[in-house]
Amino acid sequence: MRIIVALSGGMDSATLLGTLFRQSGTKEIHCCIFNYGSKHVEWEMEAARKLIHFYDGHDGPAVITHFFDLSTIMSRFKSALLQTGGPIPEGHYKDVNMKQTVVPGRNLIFISIMAGLAESLNIKTISLGVHSGDHFIYPDCRPEFIYSARWVLHHSAETRVKLAAPFLFLNKAKILELGYKCNPPVPYELTRTCYKDQELSCGKCGSCSERLEAFGQINRQDPIQYEA
Amino acid sequence: MRIIVALSGGMDSATLLGTLFRQSGTKEIHCCIFNYGSKHVEWEMEAARKLIHFYDGHDGPAVITHFFDLSTIMSRFKSALLQTGGPIPEGHYKDVNMKQTVVPGRNLIFISIMAGLAESLNIKTISLGVHSGDHFIYPDCRPEFIYSARWVLHHSAETRVKLAAPFLFLNKAKILELGYKCNPPVPYELTRTCYKDQELSCGKCGSCSERLEAFGQINRQDPIQYEA
Repeated sequence: MRIIVALSGGMDSATLLGTLFRQSGTKEIHCCIFNYGSKHVEWEMEAARKLIHFYDGHDGPAVITHFFDLSTIMSRFKSALLQTGGPIPEGHYKDVNMKQTVVPGRNLIFISIMAGLAESLNIKTISLGVHSGDHFIYPDCRPEFIYSARWVLHHSAETRVKLAAPFLFLNKAKILELGYKCNPPVPYELTRTCYKDQELSCGKCGSCSERLEAFGQINRQDPIQYEA
Repeated sequence: MRIIVALSGGMDSATLLGTLFRQSGTKEIHCCIFNYGSKHVEWEMEAARKLIHFYDGHDGPAVITHFFDLSTIMSRFKSALLQTGGPIPEGHYKDVNMKQTVVPGRNLIFISIMAGLAESLNIKTISLGVHSGDHFIYPDCRPEFIYSARWVLHHSAETRVKLAAPFLFLNKAKILELGYKCNPPVPYELTRTCYKDQELSCGKCGSCSERLEAFGQINRQDPIQYEA
């Protein structure tokens, strides 16, 4: 199997990569790294590169990188997550103020580019690490979005590219459990979740709060360092 | 009404712009010009700019330009239409060899960016000039694509951006009839349809053949010059 995944450098897409890496029959994993002009792009990119380097160092399927720079295009969009937007809100990941971090059209733009690449490389499946914790705030991570995206991809090209979303109904704690069962275990110390543009993760934004809650739920210490 | 349209510089999107320009209640027309790395990009862009300049010179709604450079991203895709692809096929626009001119994911990528812009600018509707002549070769111009794209946009953002495709069941001849009835009539002498990278339109590619057939059907002379 050859597959295309979106790799953000966060713990969910890292787990997606980790589970595919040991899945029997996987031949090639094409990782799409998107720079969409977020405040935390530098840290995300670094994490994504380290993850690819990690899997490159292990026996297994080929891991291929595709870098897409959408920063100029998406700098015109409105979101607190973007360099052109207001400050990152702090609080719980289900709080209403986290809606400021929605990036208009983000997943549809990613999916459409991944599908175009899939068709061009004769690859049948693309995959996203969206999960149930995203459903509260991000419309483009909800089941109804994924289902309708499957239909639009089916009709967009005669090659009928498939969209997988294996974590759609899992929360971050379940994803961590999966990742720790992988061989090799997913190197969460290399991942980056925080929305802020600073070396140490803040521990206070919605994204950090959800990650910390997940590690708490599985009684493990998060291996990354936090500011507080 | 404020609306976002994709403006390629061809006769269909020019007619879309022309019909919206005189539609009562139109306040702003945002024209998205996409460079997707096609061979004929230089001529398309020039046509699109001339069209915007033409409407700017007439009393009516504001016409705003948004330029998006997708050439680096889409240069990795496979299509004869791209600078990175093989030669442009010649023949009738319904011929099977015209499938080489399909650009993977093109309309879905355009729509997803237009929808992100719409959400960011608080605009409710985006519009495409796809028509029935496109249905034979281009999956992403067919009704089933447009219908499923409407659903995915509905679920992609809470603002529920609408996708209009007013020419979906019209052929190019009907579109021309609409355009000549506009006030001002659509300036077809400024439009560019040919797929080839040359100043004069070739008259032989699928795109030229369809255009010439349409002018023939309405008994008018195509006002642009052809090579042959």
